[in-house]
Parts: sequence; C-alpha cells; structure tokens
Amino acid sequence: MPLTKGTDELELNLSVDCVIFTIENAGLKVLLTKLLPEMNWMLPGGFITKRENANQAANRILKFRTGVENIYLNQFQIFSDPERFTFSLPIQKGVLSEEDSAIIEQLPKRVISIGYFALANFESIHPTGGVLEEESCWCDIDELPELEYDHKQIINEAILSLRKEVYFRPIVYKLLPEKFTLPELQSLYEVILGKSLDRGSFQRKMLRWDIFERLEERRGGVAHKRPFLYRFDHKKYQGAIEKGLNFGM
Amino acid sequence: MPLTKGTDELELNLSVDCVIFTIENAGLKVLLTKLLPEMNWMLPGGFITKRENANQAANRILKFRTGVENIYLNQFQIFSDPERFTFSLPIQKGVLSEEDSAIIEQLPKRVISIGYFALANFESIHPTGGVLEEESCWCDIDELPELEYDHKQIINEAILSLRKEVYFRPIVYKLLPEKFTLPELQSLYEVILGKSLDRGSFQRKMLRWDIFERLEERRGGVAHKRPFLYRFDHKKYQGAIEKGLNFGM
Repeated sequence: MPLTKGTDELELNLSVDCVIFTIENAGLKVLLTKLLPEMNWMLPGGFITKRENANQAANRILKFRTGVENIYLNQFQIFSDPERFTFSLPIQKGVLSEEDSAIIEQLPKRVISIGYFALANFESIHPTGGVLEEESCWCDIDELPELEYDHKQIINEAILSLRKEVYFRPIVYKLLPEKFTLPELQSLYEVILGKSLDRGSFQRKMLRWDIFERLEERRGGVAHKRPFLYRFDHKKYQGAIEKGLNFGM
Repeated sequence: MPLTKGTDELELNLSVDCVIFTIENAGLKVLLTKLLPEMNWMLPGGFITKRENANQAANRILKFRTGVENIYLNQFQIFSDPERFTFSLPIQKGVLSEEDSAIIEQLPKRVISIGYFALANFESIHPTGGVLEEESCWCDIDELPELEYDHKQIINEAILSLRKEVYFRPIVYKLLPEKFTLPELQSLYEVILGKSLDRGSFQRKMLRWDIFERLEERRGGVAHKRPFLYRFDHKKYQGAIEKGLNFGM
C-alpha cells in the first residue's frame, strides 16, 4: 500500500489526477485504472512530493501508475470540495492491515486534486499498469462505470476543457496521419465534440486557421468524390500552438 | 499579523491569489495591494480554510483584503514551484515580533497558489483596503512595479488566460454601456488583447457570434460616419456564456 510509505516526502493534501483521452473505433475514451480489486475504477493519480512542481508530479504519477510517459499534460482545473476525498475509503472497504489503517487515520482530512488532461494517439500509448501492475482499461466516455471519489466529475470537466481546447489550439494533430482529407479531420472533431458538424462551415473554419497545406494528391476512391489531401504546415502550426489560434483577430 | 492567528483553521500550504483586471484610460490595469509598508506590492491573496472550497476562499479573501465583492472569479492556473513562496519573507524584512517569527518558522516550507482572474468594470468596484485597511492601487500591466514572490509571473499568466477567454466567451459585456457601437467594442478588445485589430474582420467575427442586436439608432456625430448602435441579445448572450462561443462549429 504505497499511500502509507514515505509519506513524509509527500504533500499529503495535494494530489494530481490524470484524464488521458484517446480515440478508438470512432469513440472518445478515457484511461482508467484499478488500484485494488476491491475498489472501483479510478483515474490514475497520486500525491505531489515536497520537491516537485505539479507538472512534474503529474508526469511521474502517470508513468508510475500506468507506465504511460512522454505525453503533454494540460493542467485544467483543481477540485477542492472539502468532502471530495477521504483516505479512509480503503479502510471502509476492509482492504488494509490494522497497522496501515492506523497510519492512514493520521493523514489530512482533506485533499485538493489538480486535474490534468491529455489527448493521445491510441496506437502510440501502451498502458503497462506501471510499477503497481494495476489493471487498466480504455473506457468510452458514454459508458463510464462507477468511479471512486469525484472522478466522474473530474472526467466531465476534462471533456469540457478538451472541447474548448480544440477550438483554440490544433491539438488534434497527433491523432492524424501525415496526410489527411478534410472529411477525415471533420470526423475527428465530431468524435471529440460529440456532435455532427456542418461540412461547409467546418471546412471554411479550418482553412481560415491557415495551418494546413493542400497537396496536389487526392485520396483514392470514386473519381468525382476524391477529396484533396492536406498536411500541417509545421511552421504555421507551431506558431498556432504557441500563441493559440487567433480566429482572424 | 493575521498569518499567525487561527492557523489551525487554514490549509497552510494552499493559497489563492486574485488578479483583478479593469480598463481605465484605454489601459489594462490590475489591482495590487500592499500588506505591510516594508513589503513590495502584491496580488490580494490568502490561505484556504479547512472548510471551504477554493472558489469560496477566493471570494472571501478578495473581500477581506480589498473590500471588493460580487465579482465572478475564473480559476485559471496553479503555481506550484517548490521555491515560489516563503513564509519567512516578513522575518527577513524584520517586520515581525520574535513571537510571531517563532510561529512562522513552524509553517510549511512550501505553498501552492491557485490563481484566479476577473475582468471588472472600473466604475463599479471600489477597493476599500478591506479589513486590513491595506493600501491598494490600479497598476497598468505595462508599468508593473517590483512585486513580491512570483506575482509578476501570475499576472502574466492571467493576461494570457484573459486574452484566451475573450475569444471564447463574450466576457467584455460588463465593461460596455447598454448601447454601444462596433468601433467602441473594437477599442475594448484592442486594449485587452494589446494590439490593433483589422476593422473589417473584427466586425465580421463579432456579428458571426450572433449575440448582438442592431438597433435603429445611431451614435451622434458627422452624418456619414454615424455608426449604428448595438446591444447584447441577453438570451443569446446567456447561451454563449454557458456553452462558450462555438465559432460556427
């Protein structure tokens, strides 16, 4: 039970929780793990140490809990309800020794969590269960199981932040092949936004962002329906990532 | 010295800092306060109590420190560098009694701060200095004095968040009179964004947001230059505030 070891190195009222999204089979999915068989599914999370900042903690904990690394995590919101978390949950579930339980009773009554999210390419990440060899799964956001603590709320807020972010920054980049068509790009946005988009206004908007380069090639298929291929203009894309898309202002 | 009183009620490693923006004389300004004459200017901030969430703390502290209330505060980022803050600053500056200094030495070595920002109407808020009767001032963001701790960084990050937010939500609403012209709206955006905007594309964008109603009236002035007056369509505006502007998607 790692919670009770080395606690003097941890900020025991400060945790991070990581919401890792991916797209698979035209569904938006989130990475969940199970710390103990007796507990419900949870987001991978943990405590900040006294010597690291929150971003460092989020990256360390994601790797420790799931084996996943090298993902750009966006800090999006903190969760600070005084009643949101209790250390005594594993005690209530009867999964701790008396000795561990006694240690846990000494811990802070209240923990604030800093939420992080990322949008990752399904092919490129392989959760290993991390050092704890946890069970993990990708779960469709429309079919979430019962989750521990306020983790369903954290996921819902992360979805809102993700949907806002895709309007502001072209963060879908890593989910696309090098060359793609505008209908393929639109499908990706539709999965993330959870709604159908008008083809004409979507394409006008995307081209107005001025970060794509239209190639001479077209995708194969029926002749009059063969859409042009595009790719990101990396220089313009980098500028947009740094400054945010300015929507023509 | 309130830091040393009632500390058992506080989360002593968790603070909030409030960046209150306003526009005055065509400049974007931020509210600063001075806790002690010997210290530099600071953002109004303080510690979260054990029984409140971060939003409640931010509102309470803003009122306590500056007298300002009823402002919608946006949580935008946390500041978690392990070295960012030290309780011993007032000790170093020699402004504490020996007794208070001894108490402070017992406090946590590291404090994480949760940053909030708001954009408020200059006419409507009147900093009183709060319960502590602090000195306060509105300072142009281009002429910031030396600030305590990492407060200059917090302000810079808040400016980025504010600029991002005005693209996503029509939060400038409260800074405008009931009826306004598009050039007046543009001036407001130019002050907030810190740059000149193209008149044509600004107006197209604003009208595309579909939250304004054009009136039959025009602003007085030279006949052929008299611009139409607009006002917010409150129902559409409310929808946009809740869902975010969707930029036509």
